[in-house]
Amino acid sequence: MVDQLPNPGSTERTTNRRTDRTIVDREVLYKILDDSLVCHVGFVDEENQPFVLPMGFARVNDDLLLHGSTGSRLMRRIGSGIPICVEVTILDGLVLAKSSFESSMNYRSAVVFGKGKIVEGEEKSSFLISLTDKLAPGRSKEVRESTKKELAATLLVSIPLTETSIKVRIGPPKEAEEDLNSPVWSGVVPFKLIAQEPIEGDEISKTLEKPSSVAEIIKNYS
Amino acid sequence: MVDQLPNPGSTERTTNRRTDRTIVDREVLYKILDDSLVCHVGFVDEENQPFVLPMGFARVNDDLLLHGSTGSRLMRRIGSGIPICVEVTILDGLVLAKSSFESSMNYRSAVVFGKGKIVEGEEKSSFLISLTDKLAPGRSKEVRESTKKELAATLLVSIPLTETSIKVRIGPPKEAEEDLNSPVWSGVVPFKLIAQEPIEGDEISKTLEKPSSVAEIIKNYS
Repeated sequence: MVDQLPNPGSTERTTNRRTDRTIVDREVLYKILDDSLVCHVGFVDEENQPFVLPMGFARVNDDLLLHGSTGSRLMRRIGSGIPICVEVTILDGLVLAKSSFESSMNYRSAVVFGKGKIVEGEEKSSFLISLTDKLAPGRSKEVRESTKKELAATLLVSIPLTETSIKVRIGPPKEAEEDLNSPVWSGVVPFKLIAQEPIEGDEISKTLEKPSSVAEIIKNYS
Repeated sequence: MVDQLPNPGSTERTTNRRTDRTIVDREVLYKILDDSLVCHVGFVDEENQPFVLPMGFARVNDDLLLHGSTGSRLMRRIGSGIPICVEVTILDGLVLAKSSFESSMNYRSAVVFGKGKIVEGEEKSSFLISLTDKLAPGRSKEVRESTKKELAATLLVSIPLTETSIKVRIGPPKEAEEDLNSPVWSGVVPFKLIAQEPIEGDEISKTLEKPSSVAEIIKNYS
């Protein structure tokens, strides 16, 4: 199935100017999406004003899943089939070259172009479980099932990963020829998103052991 | 000067549906922007296709500064005066309620609507120094000045902070009435972006003490 979809970077608007930062491997795309917790959804409103909204999301196979409130006008617009652009970026470090000009960031970024589709019925319940488990692995088994009322209040939108683009920068600074022997410190300050000590939400939770979903989050962000 | 600009959330499209998550304080806006390293720039191309691009940025007073390559078609478009939307989001934690439906994220997010303007001349040099020092405090004093060629290769775009919006979620999970006595662990797993041990970029740097800009980055992200 995966092999039938085009690779990242295979259309004109997904071709980057900086070919040294372009990757066309779908597994890399999956990893960038799976390592991200927040995506940035771009679209235009009825007056062609661009909007960018942050959203929690999940990837299931070759679909991105966004969810929001049925009451949200912008969320309904995202699901209405207009062209949208979803972007995620993981900042891996600040790159301090011997010059301002060559200084940069290390990052992994993915962009998805497509049209959103509202998901209903059984697929909706199963996709919402995937979303819960993406944000907190195994959490769906620790909490009760969602009620019909809760499901009805949730709008779920899927976007197929058919037109995508990846950009990655890794490694040390590149230096201008003239700076190669300059006695200025250069290097990378790596960054990592780290989970901190959990904070119980109520008195009952203080008497309970932390569930495995919390342990998984801490393990994944340590 | 600050007082003459409208507060966040003062126009129709910057008014959030969730009034409990809306903040209209400019100092909060500044702090969210200053605490972010990457912003997400939304705009449409000539065919009305929405794009979202990640970029390093800085705030100077009441302007956002974006920079890119003079050779980048999309960067030139961002500077051409079309409507754009810049969004930043800091993820502060995963909020695990006793139900999937009430589970959420803690975050601080800002959106800026406006039109970009290409900055030239003396203002360009001084703004680029601000950008360098935002990403690595004091770095502009540690490196050589940019050459004319480097300046010419850099496109600098400013966007005034006139129409903005802030959304913040903090604190413990909100629970559904029916779950208040449920023996399910609920709480928050806080997240923090943490700077890791710096990696020298060349042999010379291994013989040098780490500069104060690196110490500042580590202090700010610890």
